[in-house]
Amino acid sequence: MSAQPVSPSRLSLNQITTKNWSLPEAVQGCLDAGIPAIGLWRDKVAETGVAEAAKLVREAGLAVSTLCRGGFLTAPGPDGRHAALAENLRALEEAAELGTDTLVLVVGGLPDGSRDLVGARERVAELLAELAPHAGDLGVRLAIEPLHPMFCADRAVVSTLGQALDLAERFPVEQVGVVVDSYHVWWDPELASQIARAGARIASYQVCDWTLPLPADALLGRGHVGDGHIDFRTMTEQLTAAGYTGWIEVEIFNDTIWNTPGADTLRTMIERHHAHVEAP
Amino acid sequence: MSAQPVSPSRLSLNQITTKNWSLPEAVQGCLDAGIPAIGLWRDKVAETGVAEAAKLVREAGLAVSTLCRGGFLTAPGPDGRHAALAENLRALEEAAELGTDTLVLVVGGLPDGSRDLVGARERVAELLAELAPHAGDLGVRLAIEPLHPMFCADRAVVSTLGQALDLAERFPVEQVGVVVDSYHVWWDPELASQIARAGARIASYQVCDWTLPLPADALLGRGHVGDGHIDFRTMTEQLTAAGYTGWIEVEIFNDTIWNTPGADTLRTMIERHHAHVEAP
Repeated sequence: MSAQPVSPSRLSLNQITTKNWSLPEAVQGCLDAGIPAIGLWRDKVAETGVAEAAKLVREAGLAVSTLCRGGFLTAPGPDGRHAALAENLRALEEAAELGTDTLVLVVGGLPDGSRDLVGARERVAELLAELAPHAGDLGVRLAIEPLHPMFCADRAVVSTLGQALDLAERFPVEQVGVVVDSYHVWWDPELASQIARAGARIASYQVCDWTLPLPADALLGRGHVGDGHIDFRTMTEQLTAAGYTGWIEVEIFNDTIWNTPGADTLRTMIERHHAHVEAP
Repeated sequence: MSAQPVSPSRLSLNQITTKNWSLPEAVQGCLDAGIPAIGLWRDKVAETGVAEAAKLVREAGLAVSTLCRGGFLTAPGPDGRHAALAENLRALEEAAELGTDTLVLVVGGLPDGSRDLVGARERVAELLAELAPHAGDLGVRLAIEPLHPMFCADRAVVSTLGQALDLAERFPVEQVGVVVDSYHVWWDPELASQIARAGARIASYQVCDWTLPLPADALLGRGHVGDGHIDFRTMTEQLTAAGYTGWIEVEIFNDTIWNTPGADTLRTMIERHHAHVEAP
């Protein structure tokens, strides 16, 4: 009999979705909308300061579903390797201070002018081996995110969930997991079997929709859940069957959505979540 | 001691690469450049007429490496199914008349408004089963082309070489094969093992390069071999090791290249072929 909207108990706002909000604005937006969790971005955290950001989300009672993002592990040579390790150790420490157990990794693309995809993938594995014990010490899990193959050259040489699991399974489950982001994996003919295989390795479930046409900057082509071609209900069921009951984080890169008032975006997120991802 | 360029004995011009050339112009272009084979497109063939096109290439002494293209097998309902079968039977007959043993199939994307990727993939398998015996009768092989996953929604629900082989292996090897197009498969972490698995199923090897940024129409983002991120030498070695010694067809969708004089494009093709794909 109540007009109250049902609380979306597993929904999290990835803060890139409201890119024009500062961290304090995003925290307040979640409180106003009744969204119980937030996925933070390091650049936004840096604007506020890590300690202050941690205090804000804690006092707001929000869970921090993930920190985005570490990774970029493919630079060649000792300098590139050293810089990547140092940066990812800082990211792990920030994640711990912010109270999240998940650091999302975008592993990096091919170095400039390189065609050595095999070599770049080997460097990812090597640096994961260096980072994993530190992650374990800090109680934060490295979550390898396979990116859509159209980002293989420039952003992530890990392109499928199966490939991410091949990497993750070299390490203890509490140290290295995987991200299932609908946009990046929806097309994969092995998706169902790889989600089943992933089980407890699933560290994060991120959602947005595949919409066409792709814009000139393909990074910004993602749509609200329900606006495109992805069958979210089935994907959510597969994740549930695999044992994943954690946060469902809405992460959208889209100029039009970024230029929409944040409160409107959060209202759409909640509606679409109930309609397409998980029944209320 | 000769200044003669070495003849690129396995090189074929896919005629989309010189989109502004008619079929007779493309045939003459190949003769002038010393390119021994051509991959034909049905729209260009139709402009000239099938019988006349067949006569032209035969009298020029060119091999016809492929006919592009059949497919688009995902339409739902009996009408869509019937139309797709009829169209593909016509394409098979044209291929036979043109003297090629290979009809390239782009299998089709999701029907408008559909999110049922599993269903679309099932329809592809069903229609292949209808078409395969006819292909066998005509001595033409259906060559399933996995397209890059960024085309999954709108052009081809077959997205990996492994998936194409799962389909092809249901049929006799002389009836159904696969296309290995560098642009579509270069990113695949399973590429080496799937090429090895493919063996005699490989009906065509098509090349062009992955270049960035993607243009607004992602279909047109392909570059000349050597302009992008693909390691062609390794891919060619893998195909050779799998037993493929057939045509290497250059197929480029790119507005800038289309607006280049065809003879210049063919000269570039030959140079890049020797430099990156196969030593002279």
